Amino acid sequence: MSVLITNIGELVTNDPEADDLLGVRSDAALVIDDGRVAWVGAPADAPAADEVVDADGRAVLPGFVDSHSHLVFAGDRAEEFRARMAGERYAAGGIRTTVAATRAATDAELADGVGRLVAEMRRQGTTSVEIKSGYGLTVADEARSLAVAARFTDDTTFLGAHVVPPEYDGDPTGYVELVTGPMLAAAAPHARWIDVFCETGAFDEDQARAVLAAGAAVGLRGRLHANQLGPGPGVQLAAELGLTAVDHCTYLTDQDVHALRESGTVATLLPGVEFSTRQPYPDARGLLDAGVRVALASDCNPGSSYTSSIPFCIALAVREMGMTPAEAVHAATAGGAAALGRADVGALVQGRRADVVLLEAPSHLHLAYRPGVPLVRQVWVAGEPL
Amino acid sequence: MSVLITNIGELVTNDPEADDLLGVRSDAALVIDDGRVAWVGAPADAPAADEVVDADGRAVLPGFVDSHSHLVFAGDRAEEFRARMAGERYAAGGIRTTVAATRAATDAELADGVGRLVAEMRRQGTTSVEIKSGYGLTVADEARSLAVAARFTDDTTFLGAHVVPPEYDGDPTGYVELVTGPMLAAAAPHARWIDVFCETGAFDEDQARAVLAAGAAVGLRGRLHANQLGPGPGVQLAAELGLTAVDHCTYLTDQDVHALRESGTVATLLPGVEFSTRQPYPDARGLLDAGVRVALASDCNPGSSYTSSIPFCIALAVREMGMTPAEAVHAATAGGAAALGRADVGALVQGRRADVVLLEAPSHLHLAYRPGVPLVRQVWVAGEPL
Repeated sequence: MSVLITNIGELVTNDPEADDLLGVRSDAALVIDDGRVAWVGAPADAPAADEVVDADGRAVLPGFVDSHSHLVFAGDRAEEFRARMAGERYAAGGIRTTVAATRAATDAELADGVGRLVAEMRRQGTTSVEIKSGYGLTVADEARSLAVAARFTDDTTFLGAHVVPPEYDGDPTGYVELVTGPMLAAAAPHARWIDVFCETGAFDEDQARAVLAAGAAVGLRGRLHANQLGPGPGVQLAAELGLTAVDHCTYLTDQDVHALRESGTVATLLPGVEFSTRQPYPDARGLLDAGVRVALASDCNPGSSYTSSIPFCIALAVREMGMTPAEAVHAATAGGAAALGRADVGALVQGRRADVVLLEAPSHLHLAYRPGVPLVRQVWVAGEPL
Repeated sequence: MSVLITNIGELVTNDPEADDLLGVRSDAALVIDDGRVAWVGAPADAPAADEVVDADGRAVLPGFVDSHSHLVFAGDRAEEFRARMAGERYAAGGIRTTVAATRAATDAELADGVGRLVAEMRRQGTTSVEIKSGYGLTVADEARSLAVAARFTDDTTFLGAHVVPPEYDGDPTGYVELVTGPMLAAAAPHARWIDVFCETGAFDEDQARAVLAAGAAVGLRGRLHANQLGPGPGVQLAAELGLTAVDHCTYLTDQDVHALRESGTVATLLPGVEFSTRQPYPDARGLLDAGVRVALASDCNPGSSYTSSIPFCIALAVREMGMTPAEAVHAATAGGAAALGRADVGALVQGRRADVVLLEAPSHLHLAYRPGVPLVRQVWVAGEPL
C-alpha cells in the first residue's frame, strides 16, 4: 500500500546534501511505499499511489527521534514535584520511591505504562524512542524492565548503574560487581546499549569505566549520563571512549567542549529536566558554535522530567538555549538518530524508514512559535498511520 | 440528556466555601443536566443519568476561562519570531503586518481563523474565551472583527486603541477621536468590553481615560493592557476606575500592588508573552502574597504569544512565576471568570454552567508536572461534549 503526501508547503528532509540544515523543499510531495520513503519531488511529478493525502500547504517533518527516556516505571512523583517547585524540603524517597513502586509492579503493569507513554509520544510526533531500565536495580527487575522495553523499541538501554539501591547502601563496589556480573548477564539479551549515571552521588569515573567495559565485552554499546548536576569527568570519558552520545551536558568546561568536538560524540541535551527542576539550561549555542553535534531528547521519567513532548523540548531549546528553530528541529530528528547511531531514521530522503509527521502548521517554525499547542496532525511510523 | 461522571479521582470544584483553594473532592461524582452542574457528591450516592462516564480515577476540573486573547487576525509572524529569538534586527512591520493582513482578509477568512483557534483551545480545555478586536483599526474593520468574534463568544472586547495605525502616524489625537467617536459607535453593538493598550509607544494615561470613558458612556465595561513593557500609569488607573481586570502587570511598583489589592481589580498574567519575547516574567508570587487576585490567560495572538494552551501557561506559572500548581489552576479557571466578571463559569458547583474537563491524569498537579503533554482527555461545554 503506497501513500502520496502532496501539496506539502514545507518538507523538512534533513538531506545531508542540501545547502540548508533542514534540507527544506517548498511545494513538495513524498511517496511512502513498503514502509520506506520511495520518492520525493514536486507535486506535478509525483507518481501514482494507492492513497493520496493532501497536506494543503502544511509542513511535513521526519518523525522525532527521542534518544533518551526512562519509561519503565510504576507510580508517579507529582507530590515531590509540587514540593520542589514550592521550595519545600521533601523528605520522601526521590528515585527510591520509583524503584520500590517498579519492583512491586507486575510485568503487565509495567508494559501498560510503557505502552501508554509510547502512544502519547507517537501522537506528539515521536516515531523512535530509546528506553532505559534503571528502576529495577535487581538482577530480575532490570532484566524484566528491559524485556518490557524491548516490546516497544530496539533501542533498549541497560542502566543498572542508575543509582546504588538501598540494599547496597555503603557498598557501591559490591553493587558495581553485581551490575557488571550477574545483572549484566541477565540484561544483555534484551539490551542494545549500556549506560551509567556518572555524577557525584551516583557513580564515579572508575565505576563508569568498569560498567562500560563490561558492557562492551558482551556487545553492548556505551552511552553516559554526565555533567548534569555539576562539572565532572563523564563528558571527557565519553569522548575518550568514542561513545556515540553523552547526555545532559549542563556543566561543561572548555576542555569538555573541545573533547566532544574532537571525538564527534553527540551531546544530548534534555531541557525538560532543567524546566522541571528549575536548574540552569545547558549552553546549546556554545556547543553548536564550537562544532559539537547536538541532539534534543525528552528524558521522560517520573522524577526530573515527566514530559513526553519533543515539541515542548524544541520550544525550550529556542527560548532558553539559544538554538534556532531549525537547529532545534534538526537536533530532535537527525540529531536523535545520530545519538542512537541510526542511519535508517531522522531524515526524509529516499530509502529511509517512512517516519513522517504532518503538522497542523505551515512551517517547522511553529513548533517554537506556538509553544504548548499540540500541532501534530498525522503521524506515520514505518509507513503505517497511527 | 443528563451525564454522570463517576469515579473521579480528584474533582476540582473551586467551591469558594471549601477550606482549600481548589475545593478538591477525592473519589467524587458529578451530574450534568440541562447544560448545568446538577449534582456533586460521592459515587455511591449519585442519581441515575442518561449516560455514565467512568473517569477511572482521573481528575476533573472546571474548563479553563481564557480572559485575554486576540483571535481575529489573518496571516502569521513566524519569521519575525524566528528573527527575535535569534537576536536579529527585524525591519518588518510587527503588528502593522497583522493589521494589513487582517484588513485584506474576507469576513469568512477571519471567521475561519477564529473558529480554528477556538476549536484548538477547546481541545486543550478552554471552555470560555474573551476575544478582542484590534487588528482592524478602521471603523469598518473593527466592527466586522467584533461581529466575527461575537459568533464565538459573548466576551467580545473592542480594542480600537491597540496601536495608532499607519494612516494616523503623527496624529494620535485624531486617532483617539476616531476610536471614541464613529469607531466606538460601530463597534459597541458587538462588544461587551472596551480595552486600551496603555503603554509608552501606544496610548498614554489621558488617552486611556478618554477611551474608557467613551466606552462606559455606551455601556461597555473597561479593561486595560498595562505595565507590560515597563512601569506606567495603567495599573493605578485601572484600580482607580475599579476595572474588573488589568492585564500583563509585568512591571509593578509597590504602589501598583497596593492599588490592586485595595480595588480588587484582577491582575491577569500572560506568561506566554514573556516566554515568546524572552522578557522577564511578572511576579505572581508577590501579587498573591500581597492579596491581589490573579488570573492566567494565553494572550493568544500572532505577534507576542501565539500559544492557545492554558496548560502551557499553567506550567510556566509554576516554573517561572512562583505559583503553586493549585494557584495556577485556580487562576486559569476561577481567576479567569473573575477577570471577566462571570459568575456562571469557573467552578464546578451546583448551578454553574457545565464546562468540564476530564484529564488524562490523576491530579491537577500533572498540568505542571507534565509540561507540554496534551493531557485533556474529554471536554464538555455547557454540558455538550466536544
